[in-house]
Amino acid sequence: MKGLAMHIPTFDDMLAARGRIAHHVHRTPVLTSRMLNELSGAELFFKCENLQKAGAFKARGASNAVFGLSDEQAARGVATHSSGNHGTCLAYAAGRRGIPCTVVMPRTAPQAKKDAVRGYGARVVECEPSTTSREAVFAAVVAETGAEFVHPYNDPRVIAGQATCSAELIEDVAGLDAVIAPIGGGGMVSGCCLTLSNLAPKVKIYAAEPEQADDAARSFRAGRIIADDAPETVADGLKVPLKDLTWHFVKAHVTDILTASEEEIVAAMQLIWKRMKIVAEPSSAVPLATILKNRDTFAGKRVGVIITGGNVDLDRLPWN
Amino acid sequence: MKGLAMHIPTFDDMLAARGRIAHHVHRTPVLTSRMLNELSGAELFFKCENLQKAGAFKARGASNAVFGLSDEQAARGVATHSSGNHGTCLAYAAGRRGIPCTVVMPRTAPQAKKDAVRGYGARVVECEPSTTSREAVFAAVVAETGAEFVHPYNDPRVIAGQATCSAELIEDVAGLDAVIAPIGGGGMVSGCCLTLSNLAPKVKIYAAEPEQADDAARSFRAGRIIADDAPETVADGLKVPLKDLTWHFVKAHVTDILTASEEEIVAAMQLIWKRMKIVAEPSSAVPLATILKNRDTFAGKRVGVIITGGNVDLDRLPWN
Repeated sequence: MKGLAMHIPTFDDMLAARGRIAHHVHRTPVLTSRMLNELSGAELFFKCENLQKAGAFKARGASNAVFGLSDEQAARGVATHSSGNHGTCLAYAAGRRGIPCTVVMPRTAPQAKKDAVRGYGARVVECEPSTTSREAVFAAVVAETGAEFVHPYNDPRVIAGQATCSAELIEDVAGLDAVIAPIGGGGMVSGCCLTLSNLAPKVKIYAAEPEQADDAARSFRAGRIIADDAPETVADGLKVPLKDLTWHFVKAHVTDILTASEEEIVAAMQLIWKRMKIVAEPSSAVPLATILKNRDTFAGKRVGVIITGGNVDLDRLPWN
Repeated sequence: MKGLAMHIPTFDDMLAARGRIAHHVHRTPVLTSRMLNELSGAELFFKCENLQKAGAFKARGASNAVFGLSDEQAARGVATHSSGNHGTCLAYAAGRRGIPCTVVMPRTAPQAKKDAVRGYGARVVECEPSTTSREAVFAAVVAETGAEFVHPYNDPRVIAGQATCSAELIEDVAGLDAVIAPIGGGGMVSGCCLTLSNLAPKVKIYAAEPEQADDAARSFRAGRIIADDAPETVADGLKVPLKDLTWHFVKAHVTDILTASEEEIVAAMQLIWKRMKIVAEPSSAVPLATILKNRDTFAGKRVGVIITGGNVDLDRLPWN
């Protein structure tokens, strides 16, 4: 991807995405918990993208990319490299349009992830667990198929798709003071920036990140992208670095990036499961973890909290 | 409770309950899963009472009972015996009205259940784990306090409250062919009978029960109430027997009572967690288990499925 030449998604792109994906994604519910409000001192409104198609908000961006292709492009299909929710969601969207999809994944990726991609009718091509191998294998896939590359987050179509989430949230909950979402590559946070800066510029935007993968927080303070080298965290959706498009939005519109420890993330995840009765993945719990440790920032406020996904291995829960 | 003298709840009672509890319970969302539709061959609409206040549909009946009390009755409070969701939900409703609540529980009940009741401000009084002890302790509580007894299910106020659930369901989902709910004492199923026989008499009503606690299914076939002696099942909300009021509704309006094995219940529970991303208790999974094993009955039909509760010990999941 050539960053400097890339189209920066606009508010009109978000509106177009909304229409384009309306029949392919859920309008997810917003849940509340009296007990979590008492714990935090805030009024929390959880936008439940774990209940989204394919179990993650990434169904929005992937659907926008897939359904925005011309028939000619669509015939060649789409491809990406991802061992996480983007791969599954791109497979979902491609299956929905009935076009080919190839996902390059390390051979060491969990079998469940490979099965999920295949379950939607996509092809998994395995690479070695290194950047060099992934790039070589991916280049070969694109050369062979002519497939359209859909990056997990540094793609204007993807950001415009993710931006539809906060549009629904502010329609469903009046008078929000803030919205907080986890930050990995920054696709969801960029989507929030795009929508809220246009529709509700007084709503503050916070990002939440694991302490052990705090490259976005350090980038934010340094004023330039800093990428971690292979961070380790239970919040495995948040290990990837910011890229130019997402950095464009983050640096302009985010109020702060807050961090939480591994223990705080797991404790918040348990609270969400126990109190809200939803299956949320560790990444989804990082915002609540940071809200609970930054009481002064959020107490008395109406806060939208994005629960980003629910794809968890039930046989390997982090508290067992 | 004197069964023969008891008021049989009417459709007007359900309508009154709806107004009375509207500000005290959630209108819970209806979720769908493409994958579970494919597995079953049916169109399934899951009414998510696990997302209800206090984590179970029983918040409806308990709230109706509590908010229907006169001020004089309310001042003396409410009492029940329950180590399950009814105790927690009665405590929730009483806390909401700010009146005393006593729940008699065996001293062997899980600490988490006692904590949940106390967390809503109610008093736990322990008895020995026997019917004799429970009845003696409960009688002493009522004699001491003058509290109003709210039975977990054999109570017209409770049934009228549970009946509001299927009213919401048929408003949210047009053209249902059937509704299925788990059956223990029969409070939820009776509520479905009350509402659907009045509002949508063509909708078939099914009940689902563990094979290992199939007293309702045997009662249904025998034409009289048969109570099991201390059945054991992972679906611990479904061990209790039918009583006269619930039997009145079940025998008149239920099409069939289907059963599932322990293994089928746990497998269905895992499917719900994995595919729908919600935390549902084992009892809630019994309907899906019976749908999957009775494909001929449900294939091609639009089926409402009541997910009754989400109160699970996350440290003791049945597949670990």
